[in-house]
Amino acid sequence: MRGDVGGTSPFFLREEPIMAEFMDIVRGRRSVRKYEDREVPAEALSAILEAVRWAPSWANTQCWEIVVVRDRAIKEQLQAALPPKGNPAYGAIVQAPVVVALCGRLRSSGYYKDQVTTKFGDWFMFDLGIACQTLCLTACALGLATVVVGLFDHEKARAVLRVPQGHELVALIPLGYPAKISSAPSRREITEFTHQDTF
Amino acid sequence: MRGDVGGTSPFFLREEPIMAEFMDIVRGRRSVRKYEDREVPAEALSAILEAVRWAPSWANTQCWEIVVVRDRAIKEQLQAALPPKGNPAYGAIVQAPVVVALCGRLRSSGYYKDQVTTKFGDWFMFDLGIACQTLCLTACALGLATVVVGLFDHEKARAVLRVPQGHELVALIPLGYPAKISSAPSRREITEFTHQDTF
Repeated sequence: MRGDVGGTSPFFLREEPIMAEFMDIVRGRRSVRKYEDREVPAEALSAILEAVRWAPSWANTQCWEIVVVRDRAIKEQLQAALPPKGNPAYGAIVQAPVVVALCGRLRSSGYYKDQVTTKFGDWFMFDLGIACQTLCLTACALGLATVVVGLFDHEKARAVLRVPQGHELVALIPLGYPAKISSAPSRREITEFTHQDTF
Repeated sequence: MRGDVGGTSPFFLREEPIMAEFMDIVRGRRSVRKYEDREVPAEALSAILEAVRWAPSWANTQCWEIVVVRDRAIKEQLQAALPPKGNPAYGAIVQAPVVVALCGRLRSSGYYKDQVTTKFGDWFMFDLGIACQTLCLTACALGLATVVVGLFDHEKARAVLRVPQGHELVALIPLGYPAKISSAPSRREITEFTHQDTF
């Protein structure tokens, strides 16, 4: 039996899976650190935000908040929060036409009636990871590219973006058309991270 | 200029974006709690694990470990780690043909030379979120469904799966063909979570 699925469900619309193209996106996504000098169209940014909107989250808490940074002066202030050495995305923060700052609302995901419900405490990092990959894959499907930057002075960057109390800035994500796409870093084989029935 | 991208990059293969179908998957994914009595084909599971393999992670640490549970007795033991009330996925843990247990290796993501590098400490929850959404979207593209279960006694469940020291079990994800697909819970509008240049 199939339930009520609305007009957009892949369960209902298709007989054939669209796996080949979907896997092209998953496998073709790269962390890109050089961008073309070309704006991100408003329609593309809207599609990316629309995709994030549909990300799942703990009890549908939707704990993400997104700051879209286009202002060059602010991008330069964010860059100053990165270590100049040791972060290969240092240049990209200013060079990319857009930097998406991914923030999370605290004390909602993983909570029930203001009490933590699991040993992991605030679950927002997990939900932001979900939102992050939704964003990166959608960008890739549009021919855009991203790189997820997590290594920076979070307090300094959150002050630049005026992130309010009760929220955290977690990742800065340069977004634009890729100028240089590196080959993929190697990955473990499936058998190296998969276990049957017990670990 | 376009770099070396290999045979699978969407940047290279396509002139036209494949956004319509991709967005169908993102928007059509639902948390499903009733499954058909039908096995998950080995090829489908392989494709899902292959997709996870290509998820990005902190400095390519690939901190995920996955336990594929098909054994009914083990699923029943996992179910006993869930609160019988208050978790709508209680039945799904046993009813779904497969439960994917998503685990993380500690002290790698977010670390450099065995030292934490950000205020968030161990970054594995973020990376597992990325892996989780990669898994759920790929399942959806295959016509399969999932639900992410995070509310359970993690110590009890990790003992069932014999998850070793230095790792954490984070989420249990029933996987199978959907028998009943609920309508989507409401979402905030883009304007409600998006900010320009500063929060």
